[in-house]
Amino acid sequence: MTIVDIIEKKKQKQALTKEEINFFVKGFLSGEIKDYQASALLMAICLNDMTDEETMDLTFAMLESGDKIDLSMIKGTKVDKHSTGGVGDKTSIILAPLVASTGVSVAKMSGRGLGHTGGTIDKLEAISGFQTSLTQEEFINNVNDIGVALTGQTGNIAPADKKLYALRDVTGTVNSIPLIASSIMSKKLASGADKIVIDLKVGNGALVNNIDDARRLGHLMVKIGKKFSKDVICFLTNMNEPLGHNIGNGLEVLECIDVLNGKGPEDLKNLIEELASTMVSLGKNISKEEALKEVTDNLTNGKAYQKFLEFVERQHGDIHHITVSDKTLSVKSNKDGFITAINTLKLGELSRQLGAGRLNKEDVIDYGVGMVLNKKQGDFVMEGEELVKIYYNEKSIPLIDILNCFQIENDYKEKEPLIYEKIM
Amino acid sequence: MTIVDIIEKKKQKQALTKEEINFFVKGFLSGEIKDYQASALLMAICLNDMTDEETMDLTFAMLESGDKIDLSMIKGTKVDKHSTGGVGDKTSIILAPLVASTGVSVAKMSGRGLGHTGGTIDKLEAISGFQTSLTQEEFINNVNDIGVALTGQTGNIAPADKKLYALRDVTGTVNSIPLIASSIMSKKLASGADKIVIDLKVGNGALVNNIDDARRLGHLMVKIGKKFSKDVICFLTNMNEPLGHNIGNGLEVLECIDVLNGKGPEDLKNLIEELASTMVSLGKNISKEEALKEVTDNLTNGKAYQKFLEFVERQHGDIHHITVSDKTLSVKSNKDGFITAINTLKLGELSRQLGAGRLNKEDVIDYGVGMVLNKKQGDFVMEGEELVKIYYNEKSIPLIDILNCFQIENDYKEKEPLIYEKIM
Repeated sequence: MTIVDIIEKKKQKQALTKEEINFFVKGFLSGEIKDYQASALLMAICLNDMTDEETMDLTFAMLESGDKIDLSMIKGTKVDKHSTGGVGDKTSIILAPLVASTGVSVAKMSGRGLGHTGGTIDKLEAISGFQTSLTQEEFINNVNDIGVALTGQTGNIAPADKKLYALRDVTGTVNSIPLIASSIMSKKLASGADKIVIDLKVGNGALVNNIDDARRLGHLMVKIGKKFSKDVICFLTNMNEPLGHNIGNGLEVLECIDVLNGKGPEDLKNLIEELASTMVSLGKNISKEEALKEVTDNLTNGKAYQKFLEFVERQHGDIHHITVSDKTLSVKSNKDGFITAINTLKLGELSRQLGAGRLNKEDVIDYGVGMVLNKKQGDFVMEGEELVKIYYNEKSIPLIDILNCFQIENDYKEKEPLIYEKIM
Repeated sequence: MTIVDIIEKKKQKQALTKEEINFFVKGFLSGEIKDYQASALLMAICLNDMTDEETMDLTFAMLESGDKIDLSMIKGTKVDKHSTGGVGDKTSIILAPLVASTGVSVAKMSGRGLGHTGGTIDKLEAISGFQTSLTQEEFINNVNDIGVALTGQTGNIAPADKKLYALRDVTGTVNSIPLIASSIMSKKLASGADKIVIDLKVGNGALVNNIDDARRLGHLMVKIGKKFSKDVICFLTNMNEPLGHNIGNGLEVLECIDVLNGKGPEDLKNLIEELASTMVSLGKNISKEEALKEVTDNLTNGKAYQKFLEFVERQHGDIHHITVSDKTLSVKSNKDGFITAINTLKLGELSRQLGAGRLNKEDVIDYGVGMVLNKKQGDFVMEGEELVKIYYNEKSIPLIDILNCFQIENDYKEKEPLIYEKIM
């Protein structure tokens, strides 16, 4: 068996065997198979696809390439949640304490920002002192003590995926359903949860643009979950506009605090209620309706926010110091009309250029910058009215680029649904 | 412009612009674009193809990446010949002195063996002392003095192609019509000839297996030639069995000497007559019939062989010392029947394993080893009759593998033609 034969086989649109996939993953991780060979195979996979069987074999090979987290020391059912990433997607920061406030344990591992999308770990670090790197002991103790802990990836979780992902990012091979599915699922399966809720973003600000691809990805992840005896529920949700109003690390934490206090924007609140009630229903084995009641109660009776404060304190954050820049600029509409579309990817890119994300791996994030959208899809805006408030610091962006992200038309256009469908 | 954008564009089956292709070739040669990015693009090209326009831009970019040989110091029309490679393909060693013997200058650059195919330079080195590395001055002087010189690639010819080819070889991206066409043509155009005759091998021992691909490749190379004001004539010839009887460096030189003396196997002789008369007709601007007469005359009147002796002497070879092993083994047929097919690729691989070619770049060739086929397609063989004589030395191969390369059946099957068609 040689890697060139394996590449040729996939190039000829043939399915790879379990042995061939293992040979590739092991050889790539050990360095025997070179980056330039892996990237040729990745491109062949992007263009010639993989069967479900191959995708499961790839998931398994990447899962087995590293450590698996043992959460058996934590009492009760462990429910994990994963988002495929979007702009303004701050749900984990709300969900973790909210779900924990109902008595369901949340032991969550999160990532940093990637490309135009933000990351939970970066966002939490906008809270002064917040510790995002816990030892496995601290992680488990925190969950057992207060019901919630959130950490950056610990240990050697799916290292083959990590190495492959870095390569995909610089070789135009990110976009492939089987590669995305195996990447997400190898990490999630290694993280030790019993039930997994996936928020699969679909739209112009997401990894997946169209509903058909999203549907296939969703079904595939549920199928992989079943193979490993894990319940996976996958929501296909709208990423044709940013989630909520705030984009940027500190700004997003502020919006989370609003929601945890029963306020905040409608779309974000609705998504939180759907995801949280699903997680609670799985965690407590109660009906969705009962779970929803607990969730909405805790958002208004202060319990969710209290849990958040407890969580922040436990991870050494100072809730009174959340970084937000005091330099602002206003982007105003140049005409009257309804907002019919928003270029979400571009807004994410512009936030990144402001310093909210990294352009290179070495870049340091400016937690205080970002933007607040005053108008979203379906809203009416008048000429001269503020569309977006920019929070800037050292880096600048052309304001006209922000304005151009908004399509403003005379006729009202129906908003797309927030949640397209649920796959389980 | 970034390489990831260019890869994504080709991944989406879009045509690249001249600027994008130049950006890639320059960046790859300078090292700014990494091997793993180039191989992803190469795979996308293999699977999503290139337009003729793109292929010409790629050819031009690779041609311009290095030196061009100036043959203006050589009198008369310079005719070059190129073979896409096969098993037992020793035509250049015969053609160079044969064409020169008619008064047409031959200034030929050749390559070494690659994969399962042999190379002219390796074969000539089976002649003791033969110097295959000439300075540009020696090269031109030899042509002006005796009408013929043959050297390994000199100078910095199409370095981008050289680097890309090495990468393609280890990433399963060799097989692509536009990549093959641009690779061959960038080198040929840099080599300075006025007219180019290409022997495009088609069959189970060649780079191209089917006639449709070969036809497209042929037309493409002729078109590229026209764009650069060079006459290109392309012959599609049979590589479903080795050419001639002998495979292996020393053995092939012996077979060349036979042909230069008016003897040798029919297929090799016929191909030589076709290619040589085409080259002579182009070089002297005379009819194909007149050219053919000169060619056949010189193969029988001793002039071609005399020119060969002069050529060998001039490049310091000792014609009395051609390396051929004295250890032989006989592979005999295990049944009566007609030979209906020969696995040519496998015979090439087995010869390589015997030491006639390199398995790794560092390997040293054993010039004395190889094999002589006593039977070819359409021949009748009796049980116990010798099919192949193996010339071995230090390395051994399973003889049953040789036997299995021959399909022997009761019914006679018509031989395919030696020359399928001519494209110009």
